[in-house]
Amino acid sequence: MSASVSIFTRIIRGEIPCHRVHEDALTFAFLDIAPLAPGHTLVIPRREVALLHELTADEAAALARTAALLAPRILAAVGATAYNLLQNNGSAAGQVVPHVHVHIIPRREGDGLGYRWNARSAAPEELAALATKIRA
Amino acid sequence: MSASVSIFTRIIRGEIPCHRVHEDALTFAFLDIAPLAPGHTLVIPRREVALLHELTADEAAALARTAALLAPRILAAVGATAYNLLQNNGSAAGQVVPHVHVHIIPRREGDGLGYRWNARSAAPEELAALATKIRA
Repeated sequence: MSASVSIFTRIIRGEIPCHRVHEDALTFAFLDIAPLAPGHTLVIPRREVALLHELTADEAAALARTAALLAPRILAAVGATAYNLLQNNGSAAGQVVPHVHVHIIPRREGDGLGYRWNARSAAPEELAALATKIRA
Repeated sequence: MSASVSIFTRIIRGEIPCHRVHEDALTFAFLDIAPLAPGHTLVIPRREVALLHELTADEAAALARTAALLAPRILAAVGATAYNLLQNNGSAAGQVVPHVHVHIIPRREGDGLGYRWNARSAAPEELAALATKIRA
């Protein structure tokens, strides 16, 4: 009955092999087999939900703790000094596997990676109205 | 003596205005004034450190909790259904302000945003050696 579970749940169960770097009560972490850079790691919650905000607060917190724990070890292992954390929610955001995962991506100057940064300026009154809406 | 603190610390102190959407004991969140998309929000720890792994485990956890709390509110406010979380550590990773910040970026199909995805395949033996190094 594994057809209904994500590939990541199958990895946690040991049904699919992985290069594991960490596990604890709430999280599991392993190397991405199609890395953007050496040391590209995925941190996932053991419980399978698609989106970050579907996690419990404790699960979301545990993901961040594990990412913060692993990041310096990953940098040391690959000799990098910078990294991105990236987490995609929904297919329009680039999510492929519907099981929450945090990418830890080691970075180097001139590596051609990173987020497409097409920032605009926003009108103060527009931002003020939006902030009121979000706080509400 | 504010020359030595980040622009984000000055925002938390109220020395620089912002469009605040949340605050609690450990975190503070406000709208980015140069948004990548409507609703682009920054979640920061109150304590100023540059890198995620310099935070305490509790501070890192609190950032994730706040991001998970705000994400659905932001999506509802701007009418989006997907989002990226992005967090840059170090200038080679695109970090400009040396005070940890999590970007919440609402996404829509065809918006031209997202991470540059130039994945390679990695040799299994290379991944195995790296995983051993990181676990150690």
